[in-house]
Amino acid sequence: MSLKGSIYMNSITKSISEKIDELRNKVPLVHNITNYVTVNDVANALLAIGASPIMADDIEETADITAISSALVINIGTLNKRTIASMIASGKKANELGIPVIFDPVGAGASKLRNDATKEILNQVKVSVLRGNLSEVSFVAGLKVSTKGVDTSEEDEKNDGAAVAGSVAESLGCAVAITGAVDIISDGKRVVKISNGNKMLKKVTGTGCMTTALIGAFAGAEKDYFTAAASGVASMGIAGDIAFEKAGQMGTGSYHIAIIDALSTLDSKIVAERAKLHEE
Amino acid sequence: MSLKGSIYMNSITKSISEKIDELRNKVPLVHNITNYVTVNDVANALLAIGASPIMADDIEETADITAISSALVINIGTLNKRTIASMIASGKKANELGIPVIFDPVGAGASKLRNDATKEILNQVKVSVLRGNLSEVSFVAGLKVSTKGVDTSEEDEKNDGAAVAGSVAESLGCAVAITGAVDIISDGKRVVKISNGNKMLKKVTGTGCMTTALIGAFAGAEKDYFTAAASGVASMGIAGDIAFEKAGQMGTGSYHIAIIDALSTLDSKIVAERAKLHEE
Amino acid sequence: MSLKGSIYMNSITKSISEKIDELRNKVPLVHNITNYVTVNDVANALLAIGASPIMADDIEETADITAISSALVINIGTLNKRTIASMIASGKKANELGIPVIFDPVGAGASKLRNDATKEILNQVKVSVLRGNLSEVSFVAGLKVSTKGVDTSEEDEKNDGAAVAGSVAESLGCAVAITGAVDIISDGKRVVKISNGNKMLKKVTGTGCMTTALIGAFAGAEKDYFTAAASGVASMGIAGDIAFEKAGQMGTGSYHIAIIDALSTLDSKIVAERAKLHEE
Repeated sequence: MSLKGSIYMNSITKSISEKIDELRNKVPLVHNITNYVTVNDVANALLAIGASPIMADDIEETADITAISSALVINIGTLNKRTIASMIASGKKANELGIPVIFDPVGAGASKLRNDATKEILNQVKVSVLRGNLSEVSFVAGLKVSTKGVDTSEEDEKNDGAAVAGSVAESLGCAVAITGAVDIISDGKRVVKISNGNKMLKKVTGTGCMTTALIGAFAGAEKDYFTAAASGVASMGIAGDIAFEKAGQMGTGSYHIAIIDALSTLDSKIVAERAKLHEE
Repeated sequence: MSLKGSIYMNSITKSISEKIDELRNKVPLVHNITNYVTVNDVANALLAIGASPIMADDIEETADITAISSALVINIGTLNKRTIASMIASGKKANELGIPVIFDPVGAGASKLRNDATKEILNQVKVSVLRGNLSEVSFVAGLKVSTKGVDTSEEDEKNDGAAVAGSVAESLGCAVAITGAVDIISDGKRVVKISNGNKMLKKVTGTGCMTTALIGAFAGAEKDYFTAAASGVASMGIAGDIAFEKAGQMGTGSYHIAIIDALSTLDSKIVAERAKLHEE
Repeated sequence: MSLKGSIYMNSITKSISEKIDELRNKVPLVHNITNYVTVNDVANALLAIGASPIMADDIEETADITAISSALVINIGTLNKRTIASMIASGKKANELGIPVIFDPVGAGASKLRNDATKEILNQVKVSVLRGNLSEVSFVAGLKVSTKGVDTSEEDEKNDGAAVAGSVAESLGCAVAITGAVDIISDGKRVVKISNGNKMLKKVTGTGCMTTALIGAFAGAEKDYFTAAASGVASMGIAGDIAFEKAGQMGTGSYHIAIIDALSTLDSKIVAERAKLHEE
């Protein structure tokens, strides 16, 4: 890494490590329209990191709840026609009030409904941060994808993540986080890669959804959404590292619980010490 | 505390400590129309305390399920038009058959939909126990509230909980439980405060919902709903205390699991030893 | 047990112990249309055993998701009119493509809606494996049942499980698994009983749903659905045994987590050593 790059990485690391204290002081209310598979973990991850979660998805209240929140998280994991309408109504309200919108296009590429909903949401709502795996973000980039369910396909793994992230960030004018073995965050100008986390994270459902929600928590307390995205992704990766040290040998049930434990005890010092940020 | 007060508290403590054995013998079926965020914990808390949970929310079966149950728990945490109709249909059936109805107006005060649903349910259904935080119960009392999401606002904390509980209990003719740093249970005539539990309970989603469901379990086995409400609230508070001793230092994930552990191993002796009941 | 019976049991035990390695190699995608109470555990159990879960229930995508999956799991735990239509559409698509369908008629016998939905699904969809408790499968067998909620009633416990399983297996032309104190798997010709597991499994919600999903995982990797059913049931029973040894004394919260731990660390050797299969 160049000296300039190194200074830049140190500066980002410092920035994201400071964000967690700011977040815990502000306790932002994060409105989630999300799936019923991982919603409990999403709520507990938000509480653990210092935010206050609220879930509401009926069209008659969803915009009202968004209006009192500091961030809106939209996750299409178990979408249906009723909730898609609510996602769009809440997204528009958030745009109107300058509230950040974090979008997780779970399974985009896997069905026409998910593809259409993803396009419709991106068409009608200005997104602040988009987070997905490489298959999902490749779909948003307009690439042909071969998604198998909600995981990145082996075929799609060959895509150049940094290029995909940069291209989507530029076309949507937002920050993009692609999570995987190495996470990539880009806003089209800045880019950072994060090597925290381990492959056991993929053996617990909802670690992606939780990451998206954590980004929402940081975005509710920090107006630079690129930094918020990096903070959310780094927090989950570091929690995954700590959890693996404590409970990796016991199995995925204990590992799951240890992730929440680690998030709830995370602080600036731990983030500064453990964050593995790099340019390449 | 006066001697008379002290005797009264000892008598209530004895009463609620005996209830848990009765509950475990009876294994009441508790029908829950509840939110999808905390529903798994609600089911596991009910099993842990000795009840049998059933969840059903379609209008075509909801009254049938209520009819075979010993208690009905209505929780509007993620309400929608479809489930509001089911709540009312089940509530009416419960009233018809003399089955107790426990109502948790989650987030009342935070949106027009929640406000309207709360009023409509209370208008059409005779409730046996109402449980909420101070903001939610203040809303039911007709006070102006400044709820932020699903937590009690700082502004609303200034309300006099005992007065609010008593007023709602009288106007609805039911028992009222307001949970918070100190819990208050009132039926308009009797009042008891409970100081078990600790602030970590607020860092795990669903501890309020579980408390409401536990009240349902006790009400399914005990016709004095004031005692049932105190028993449910005390059980969660004591479980929170035990869990904090065992797992508080590990983080909120382990604490969450330890709450269920504590509920599942709770017995009359533990309740009698640990319950912190008082008048003032 | 006769020598012939003993050889047969050894052969089945060997067969199901080998299946787990095959499953972990294949990583079948398992589509679940299931209830919102236990869905998180279902997803984590599928990941733990080596499958990849996907949940989707909107009529506009449900058949598309089934079409890319290796197995379809239908669970009516919190059914509603919207999802019943999706279950049937997905079931038909699975039949069309030769994808196995695992059906869990949760609470059949407890309400007209559940009874009607169970009949309608069995009428329109060819099922590969049916899993339920004795009350539920007795209902499918056309026997009069006295189900109390989602547990087997004491009255129904008197039914002859092996006869019920065999009769349903023959009439539907599928494998049938009745889980309880002793599990029974039959395809009308072959029958095996499994004595793993312990009564604490009933104190954690979702262990039945998880068993059904595990059968789906094995059926996604193994075309003999009788063996797949026995493999799924044995896996959960063995996980229940291991979890009880590790965490039974701590309470049902820790036991719950230990079940997932045990599933995630299960291998052919453990299954071969611990499986308790017998004819009578």
